[in-house]
Amino acid sequence: MKRLVLKFGGTSVGTIEKIKKVANIIKKKFSEGNEIIVIVSAMAGATDLLKKKSNLISNNFDNKELDVLLSSGEQVSCSLLSGAIIDLGLKARSWLGWQIPIITNDNYTSSQIMKIKIDEVSNFISNGGIAVIAGFQGISTESRITTLGRGGSDLSAVAVAKFFQTDSCEIYTDVEGVLTTDPSINEKAKKIDKISYEEMLEMASLGAKVMQPNAVQASMIDNIPIHVRSTFSEKAGTKIISDSEIDYNKVVTGVAYSKNNAKVSIVGVVDKPGVAADIFEPIGKNNINIDMVIQNTSLDGKKANITFTIKREDLKKTLGLIEKNKQKLNYNKLIHDDKLAKVSIIGAGMQANSGVTHKMFRSLADEKINILAISTSEIKISVLIRENLTQRAVKTLHKTFKLN
Amino acid sequence: MKRLVLKFGGTSVGTIEKIKKVANIIKKKFSEGNEIIVIVSAMAGATDLLKKKSNLISNNFDNKELDVLLSSGEQVSCSLLSGAIIDLGLKARSWLGWQIPIITNDNYTSSQIMKIKIDEVSNFISNGGIAVIAGFQGISTESRITTLGRGGSDLSAVAVAKFFQTDSCEIYTDVEGVLTTDPSINEKAKKIDKISYEEMLEMASLGAKVMQPNAVQASMIDNIPIHVRSTFSEKAGTKIISDSEIDYNKVVTGVAYSKNNAKVSIVGVVDKPGVAADIFEPIGKNNINIDMVIQNTSLDGKKANITFTIKREDLKKTLGLIEKNKQKLNYNKLIHDDKLAKVSIIGAGMQANSGVTHKMFRSLADEKINILAISTSEIKISVLIRENLTQRAVKTLHKTFKLN
Repeated sequence: MKRLVLKFGGTSVGTIEKIKKVANIIKKKFSEGNEIIVIVSAMAGATDLLKKKSNLISNNFDNKELDVLLSSGEQVSCSLLSGAIIDLGLKARSWLGWQIPIITNDNYTSSQIMKIKIDEVSNFISNGGIAVIAGFQGISTESRITTLGRGGSDLSAVAVAKFFQTDSCEIYTDVEGVLTTDPSINEKAKKIDKISYEEMLEMASLGAKVMQPNAVQASMIDNIPIHVRSTFSEKAGTKIISDSEIDYNKVVTGVAYSKNNAKVSIVGVVDKPGVAADIFEPIGKNNINIDMVIQNTSLDGKKANITFTIKREDLKKTLGLIEKNKQKLNYNKLIHDDKLAKVSIIGAGMQANSGVTHKMFRSLADEKINILAISTSEIKISVLIRENLTQRAVKTLHKTFKLN
Repeated sequence: MKRLVLKFGGTSVGTIEKIKKVANIIKKKFSEGNEIIVIVSAMAGATDLLKKKSNLISNNFDNKELDVLLSSGEQVSCSLLSGAIIDLGLKARSWLGWQIPIITNDNYTSSQIMKIKIDEVSNFISNGGIAVIAGFQGISTESRITTLGRGGSDLSAVAVAKFFQTDSCEIYTDVEGVLTTDPSINEKAKKIDKISYEEMLEMASLGAKVMQPNAVQASMIDNIPIHVRSTFSEKAGTKIISDSEIDYNKVVTGVAYSKNNAKVSIVGVVDKPGVAADIFEPIGKNNINIDMVIQNTSLDGKKANITFTIKREDLKKTLGLIEKNKQKLNYNKLIHDDKLAKVSIIGAGMQANSGVTHKMFRSLADEKINILAISTSEIKISVLIRENLTQRAVKTLHKTFKLN
């Protein structure tokens, strides 16, 4: 007998009909002889609607009350789902975060799970019951409701899998798994059968939206194998596992992109120690994330050009911070460009393969795509290009690295 | 310093704007130097919407899960209201049933409150905080969420007033108080300043919808004075108090009616002991309430006619039950009429006044209204009449007993 965690996202329980469908999936898994713990998100749209109500009350709505408000979304979906399972003739019950309890720290609206008391739920599933747990929520040490932040139900699933020592953690969503790239810009995108945590993290933070990056990170830390799959198909999805369990026959696992980029160049700053700190300190203090950084020194070694990229929405603020600092920085010119995209190839296999960088650049050059900046990590190479070339770049890289 | 319970119904918190208005009422009461405990219902329509969802899942939705589902409605309104009060610069927090806790029995969907632990909330309001408690909900002895049934927030308010020994319990609603009769059929209806619990019970169960009858009963048992008033006006409403505190200058306090009546007559049953039991036993077993009963014996003493009234919606089922029993009852004819209404005059003052009955019948006779059945209690006289005469009857009684 296996013990499974099945997590259903908001789109999987978005309507009454879908909730009934999910109840049937659970019934099937149960009838196959498994012990089942279900984690459920709020019905699609519910959380946004509640958030909107709080914003209409106040732009600065109290965090603790916000958690009481938002947690009601999962309370609705998990009671409806339990009711639907009971209606199929099975034994089921809902558990809210405070009932188990799922104990978190007191960081309201984005709490971390500290501990889960497993006794009651464990006893229930050992005696033939199906436990339906509200995702996204917990209880603080001062006995108030907490929530885990955006996508928190994935985190709930991973934490439950860890504390209950389940054999598997299945994340049900509205797509068939993790794809090699975005199918809306490349119809040749294919489902990835296996992906490492590290690769998935790079894919997730670059726009593959099937699982929250922090939940991937949590599963990596505790080595919890994840199976991302579709609620609406019986096909196997994508397994997210340790890279030691993956036999890499491909150098590159996927091609990701983000269009939300802007570049800032500060031309002709005096090249002396501390100048980069003078530039980036006020930006960092304003919670603006710097992505890529390139520094060119002039031939005479006296002046330098510093270029960096940020999120497009931060551009105006960033320019203001630099201009405010013009006297101190003593630069010649401030240039910016916000029609840029970042395209990345990701693959744990590239660590063992030389020539990947060269192959990527050649492939882009053949398509006459100019590279404006580069950044690399052990399992990822990203390039900054003009936004209107994104689709062409993704398609050629997808083909070059044999993902088609 | 006074300690007040302020209860706001669903229509009072039906929109974000109304929630903000309620927050301002609370602020005003607080600034007058009172300790405040607020009880809040779900936003108007929310409970019905949740109920509808459960019905779409199953016609026989699990009671325990239904309570988890329905209690989310008050969770939303009480967190929004707390947030709105905090936004006005005051200290406030929400409490759900399980947090206080409000301990109930395990009678899911219609639980009774057994005990309320007052320490935490008491401490909070003694230190300048405003407590906002979700109405309608509690926690069972097995630590699961319970609800108190329809109108349960009124019951929450009365129980909180009792356990916290507050000085007053104000029920805010969308009307200015309890009226002498329904203003939609008699524009001469006037607000009643003071009414006894017993009178209110008769008024409530006959259709004056400002407060749930079982909450009135609970306040009567513990002698909790209630003040029913409008959220949208500063005028005093209706005080519901013990009849010993009321100086009756009027014999009749109000005129109530209900149109939801049907009459059944069984003509020519043998007049022997046990025949009434034979008729009413199967009806009672089917949870159909019998209201008025009239039995006429024939002149020869051998046959009798039995007439009784029920709710109109129960008519078909009742006729079926009697017909099924025809052989045993051995009656001649079964007659029914479902175009009937019941009109009642209510007044604790009538106990000390003779001639009220006579005056009522004369008044109706003058208007050519035929009385089909009569029932009386110490503080009420009800008559059954043709439904199309309801308005005329209410108007003439309202005038006769000087309520205009």
